Amino acid sequence: MTGSDYPELSSGVFADLPIAPLDRSHEPELRTRIDGKCKPLGSLGRLEDLAVQLGLIWHPEPPRTENATLFVFAADHGLAAEGVSRYPAHVTRAMVGAYLDGHAGANVLARAAGVAMRVIDGGVDAEMPAHPDLLDAKIRRGTRNSAHEAAMTQHEALTALRRGAEIVREAIEQGVDVIAIGEMGIGNTASAALLMHRLVPAPLADCVGPGSGLDPEGVARKLSATERAARRSNATRPLDVLAEFGGIEIAMMAGAVLGAAACRRPVVIDGFIASAAALLAVRLAPAARDYCVFSHRSAERGHSLMLQAMHAEPYLELKLRLGEGTGAVLAVPLVRAACGILTEIADLDDVLAAVS
Amino acid sequence: MTGSDYPELSSGVFADLPIAPLDRSHEPELRTRIDGKCKPLGSLGRLEDLAVQLGLIWHPEPPRTENATLFVFAADHGLAAEGVSRYPAHVTRAMVGAYLDGHAGANVLARAAGVAMRVIDGGVDAEMPAHPDLLDAKIRRGTRNSAHEAAMTQHEALTALRRGAEIVREAIEQGVDVIAIGEMGIGNTASAALLMHRLVPAPLADCVGPGSGLDPEGVARKLSATERAARRSNATRPLDVLAEFGGIEIAMMAGAVLGAAACRRPVVIDGFIASAAALLAVRLAPAARDYCVFSHRSAERGHSLMLQAMHAEPYLELKLRLGEGTGAVLAVPLVRAACGILTEIADLDDVLAAVS
Repeated sequence: MTGSDYPELSSGVFADLPIAPLDRSHEPELRTRIDGKCKPLGSLGRLEDLAVQLGLIWHPEPPRTENATLFVFAADHGLAAEGVSRYPAHVTRAMVGAYLDGHAGANVLARAAGVAMRVIDGGVDAEMPAHPDLLDAKIRRGTRNSAHEAAMTQHEALTALRRGAEIVREAIEQGVDVIAIGEMGIGNTASAALLMHRLVPAPLADCVGPGSGLDPEGVARKLSATERAARRSNATRPLDVLAEFGGIEIAMMAGAVLGAAACRRPVVIDGFIASAAALLAVRLAPAARDYCVFSHRSAERGHSLMLQAMHAEPYLELKLRLGEGTGAVLAVPLVRAACGILTEIADLDDVLAAVS
Repeated sequence: MTGSDYPELSSGVFADLPIAPLDRSHEPELRTRIDGKCKPLGSLGRLEDLAVQLGLIWHPEPPRTENATLFVFAADHGLAAEGVSRYPAHVTRAMVGAYLDGHAGANVLARAAGVAMRVIDGGVDAEMPAHPDLLDAKIRRGTRNSAHEAAMTQHEALTALRRGAEIVREAIEQGVDVIAIGEMGIGNTASAALLMHRLVPAPLADCVGPGSGLDPEGVARKLSATERAARRSNATRPLDVLAEFGGIEIAMMAGAVLGAAACRRPVVIDGFIASAAALLAVRLAPAARDYCVFSHRSAERGHSLMLQAMHAEPYLELKLRLGEGTGAVLAVPLVRAACGILTEIADLDDVLAAVS
């Protein structure tokens, strides 16, 4: 962490979590190993670059990718009252219920990809019944309405960040190799657009899109609501931007990115909202970028520009725009394949020696 | 099968394997089901189209995708003597050894994607030692050199096609839900280019590329060799083109596509060479196209044009050009995810009812 820039991050969990950039001096050695495998040079294309990233993350140990877990952070948004979503706010808690039942999109796609899943209540605006698969990490019942006031206090924002990092650190200590992050929170593309607007930075009109499916009139209403929020504060410092515009789940995902990077584990980033969290993490600690695997290009219009701001080229382009980590989990088999290039594919010399 | 056009295909295994086009009249019903799931409308993008394809393939049963198997067909090419590959011909049998050892790219990526793998010796130019995991389906030890003579007799070509279909039919009878096809055969991008040239059709210069990594001089040599082969025969009828230009593994993969389609199972097509096999299958029986899932866009230059000829838009763009089915297996988690949209994701009404 860049403690000097962010004294708030120099204490507590983050003080224990320094983030080192990858040591690129090992890259030629990894490339040579990959080039010696029983396959034409460069023939695994972008997976070879991913293999190098994994090799550098784990160096000097061999990379591991077997135990992959999706963390779905859920929270509500005060800004939803401005009509920024196609869906009513209570859908957030309904979807948390669906995750716990095991039949939401995230569960199904995670199973298809061989990824475990954990659900975190970071700030759902309801008393959630206790459930063995639900981690209660509620910071508050939803953010405040950022069209009128700051979404969170600095303390709340920082607590959410730290909690996200802690959750991931504990999981890694328990043996998770690959972290994937996703979210649920009605209204959260509006928060993500505001973060993007200030942290890329980019005009709000380039950041606001239809989200879960607004019609043009709805997009205009969402743009107007985010413009009111933006007029209220000219924050540009990452922690200030986060506190002003939310959301809790975005803060936790940013913490998860920082936690994964500090523990030297790859973190697979889902779509528009998770990328806003990654952007926040990268603005707080630029070295965290090295640990991010950007899974897919969302159909949400601002996503390409946000990815570009992080020099990220995602692996999948499937026109997904569901969130929940659905895109992130689909990239996990690619991460495992890339790992296998380094750790499992035989050397060409050995293969040829066997027939000579 | 279009028995009237191809009397050779009206007997034996193909007579038992009529291929019916998908009944698109069920598509609105499937779209309505998908639209009722607990996710924003259309938010799973291209996976929703794939879900519809799977639903139509299995209709009226629900689709299944758990048991997926990659079939790697291996064979040698007489044309390799003309220097059309970066690698010597004995690499084919060396790589078959690597598959049986479990440490080639195909094995590793198949494991990463949760896909089983079977290796078929369709025509490796060596006496292969018996191995429990190697299916001996050798038609002959490599094709003849198509620069000088027909690669196969009509009988050999037809036998290879039938054998490919039989292998897949037996596997489906044993419970395989999803077929993926890949290949190994030094020199086979040259055969695939010749098939593409006649079956798209397209100028040879648009079909011939660096394959496993030829330099520009090597590509010129490969183009010249394929031009000599092309001058030898003006065949355009699919079975004639196959017999003239090979290869055995391409014939078997085409048979596998026909077999999968006849048994109403999805068949996941790998890159340039497997796509040439799919093109051959589609030219023999156009309805087979409905059962194909095109996995990825290869870095091999002719692939895009070949895909276009089949109106195919692949799911992955990772600049792969290894073959062996490596791209096909990486698409299997996407196929499983698409299946899960129809069979596992809860309806939005049920999710909302649980909190109201």
